Amino acid sequence: MSLKDNILNLVKAAKKASRELAVISTRQKDEALCKMASALLSRKKYILSENKKDLLAAQNQGYSTALIDRLTLNEKRIKEMADCLLETAKLKDPVGEVIRTFKRPNGLIIRKVRTPIGVIGIIYESRPNVTSDCIGLCLKSGNAVILKGGKEALHSNEAIFKVLQGVLKKTKIPLSAINLVPSADRPAVNILLKMDKYVDLIIPRGGEALIRVVAKESTIPVVKHYKGVCHTFVSDKADLSMACKICFNAKVQKPGVCNAMETMLVHKGIAKKFLPQMIRDFQMAGVEIRGCPETRRIIGDGVKAAIEEDWSEEYLDLILSVKVVKDIKEAIEHINQYGTQHSDTIVTKDKKEAQEFLNRVDSACLYVNASTRFTDGYQFGFGAEVGISTDKLHARGPMAVEELTTYKYMVYGQGQIRK
Amino acid sequence: MSLKDNILNLVKAAKKASRELAVISTRQKDEALCKMASALLSRKKYILSENKKDLLAAQNQGYSTALIDRLTLNEKRIKEMADCLLETAKLKDPVGEVIRTFKRPNGLIIRKVRTPIGVIGIIYESRPNVTSDCIGLCLKSGNAVILKGGKEALHSNEAIFKVLQGVLKKTKIPLSAINLVPSADRPAVNILLKMDKYVDLIIPRGGEALIRVVAKESTIPVVKHYKGVCHTFVSDKADLSMACKICFNAKVQKPGVCNAMETMLVHKGIAKKFLPQMIRDFQMAGVEIRGCPETRRIIGDGVKAAIEEDWSEEYLDLILSVKVVKDIKEAIEHINQYGTQHSDTIVTKDKKEAQEFLNRVDSACLYVNASTRFTDGYQFGFGAEVGISTDKLHARGPMAVEELTTYKYMVYGQGQIRK
Repeated sequence: MSLKDNILNLVKAAKKASRELAVISTRQKDEALCKMASALLSRKKYILSENKKDLLAAQNQGYSTALIDRLTLNEKRIKEMADCLLETAKLKDPVGEVIRTFKRPNGLIIRKVRTPIGVIGIIYESRPNVTSDCIGLCLKSGNAVILKGGKEALHSNEAIFKVLQGVLKKTKIPLSAINLVPSADRPAVNILLKMDKYVDLIIPRGGEALIRVVAKESTIPVVKHYKGVCHTFVSDKADLSMACKICFNAKVQKPGVCNAMETMLVHKGIAKKFLPQMIRDFQMAGVEIRGCPETRRIIGDGVKAAIEEDWSEEYLDLILSVKVVKDIKEAIEHINQYGTQHSDTIVTKDKKEAQEFLNRVDSACLYVNASTRFTDGYQFGFGAEVGISTDKLHARGPMAVEELTTYKYMVYGQGQIRK
Repeated sequence: MSLKDNILNLVKAAKKASRELAVISTRQKDEALCKMASALLSRKKYILSENKKDLLAAQNQGYSTALIDRLTLNEKRIKEMADCLLETAKLKDPVGEVIRTFKRPNGLIIRKVRTPIGVIGIIYESRPNVTSDCIGLCLKSGNAVILKGGKEALHSNEAIFKVLQGVLKKTKIPLSAINLVPSADRPAVNILLKMDKYVDLIIPRGGEALIRVVAKESTIPVVKHYKGVCHTFVSDKADLSMACKICFNAKVQKPGVCNAMETMLVHKGIAKKFLPQMIRDFQMAGVEIRGCPETRRIIGDGVKAAIEEDWSEEYLDLILSVKVVKDIKEAIEHINQYGTQHSDTIVTKDKKEAQEFLNRVDSACLYVNASTRFTDGYQFGFGAEVGISTDKLHARGPMAVEELTTYKYMVYGQGQIRK
């Protein structure tokens, strides 16, 4: 059978399974999730031995330490995967929630009811935990899932998938509710992206290059984020000690992630007081600073000059661009122009100014007096996440079970006809 | 200036205006809507004289009576357009609504707040009232709008647009909040559809051919419906007199619209009792029936044989396909296979069976004991509509002001950093 026929059969079966899964009880879903968590733990030897194969291949290919770290499973990480499934089982089932009920003058009662989306395709790179996290979130939200992982994690993903699908055999959930594309190659992605008759949503997770390809090729709606150029604006009305801790955390605690700060904006009224110590702290932590002319005037030669491209760069590294702005208006305009509508923070003691920032900055997650690092499904209390959206349609910010649902209108009549 | 530069300037100005419009007060928006309604009435002579030019051209081109009817304005229709703006002014402002507030263990308070989407492009055909309806709905929901009407309605759309934009000059709302693409030609559409940096959402309204072109060409997210193949399932537990009225209304009252019934499914247990009179009623009203073998066995030669293509055909005309099914399961499977996820009805007195239909049919609007013709923004109590979505992402069913919004998270901290 050709790869295309193979994938077509997979998505057709998934569509069929999704219709069953949409009406399966919360209890059945939660029991399956708990059994899956147990299965991951009881089969960990098998999973780790398959993961070894991927790690060996990655070492032979000379992949980076960062990639090998993302790929590596160990007892602790398998325990975390199992815990994530148990957390997902505890979440409130979004399916069937009555979002709104209204009655029309002609007696029609209209209920807006939350439903699964249907079949969700998830395209990801080298983290094997994504396999079980996404199976858990899709199952809980009543969606069939088609997973397409990176070729680096081929054996790990297949092992995790087999263990979890094995569990379904002992439940009323159809086996085709969860699916792994039987090829880790790129052509499989391009085939999957055209299956708009059967797949309702594509979520790509990974680097910007992967996501751009998916967005360009897909005839299925895609919810995504390309990158996170996140800002912290330190107002002249900020508690400067708090500002210093927030900025340091947002840049240094985990620089390689999308919710890390890439640009710090500083009000000119406190720049001379705030910048010298702040930049010393950053430099002590190994952060390279790229500053605007005013920043360099204050700090001197220790700071590289920022060029225009720096303001839209997602460094994902210990690099920070710094700009002194004349007021909150300039800060807001800078963020709306150069930002990626991901996560941005204002540090200020002035509530009115804070609210202006929240209202006028056009990003998914806006913070007052907190680190941008909190943009995360688990941190938001959503249990886990299938990704973060910087799109404006359907979902913004961390996406978990509620964001994997749509709704339908159920209209109850007594014979009404249109006049 | 080239057409492309012209449109680029338009969408850039619209993006800028959208940021102002997002924070303008409900009162200012509502006052502008009321003034717009007055202006339509006081300038009706001008609008009607411009409409005459379009009508004359349409007659010279030999366009169909149906198209000329859609294009025609008169005092009554202008009054309806004005009333729609007044109704929109009365709607609750969706912007700023706090959808959910939650507090995290670390003290962060997270508010999910409804916001405008930004800039919305609406591509439509020959109805001039769409111009004012969409301006009203977008303004109320805080979105800048780019309108691209059909060339048949060029003069009418420009006249309505000028009258409404004239009103903005006397308000604090930026002029670029509302825009009409200065060309009615197709190339303008293709240019607009690539402006993903500035336009956040495209809503195409019109025939399936137009919508397919838009969905294929657009690099901006599109919310749409291609067609409405709507079903009524008459159960063996139906009140047959009610079923007869509902089916007749769904097919005959306005056959040329997307929420009209195209296929009637009848339970075999009541087919012999129900079909003869029902089909006589339809035939008296000039409806051509295309039946399955069982329907023809019951009715005889008066009924044409349905072919496979009939089950997925949107007739938009006095034609109806009829199928006898053995049970509700077959009815549900038929609808999920051949339907377009628009609007489907079950007629039954059995509540359990009704709920099974509501749960298992995968359509935007599902009815029990009512006509599919109610799928409409005004009928749902949404004031008006910018369209109906059969997509599953972002919005389903009638789309009005709430469906023209997205949300952002506003997170209030006291210095929290990520551990």
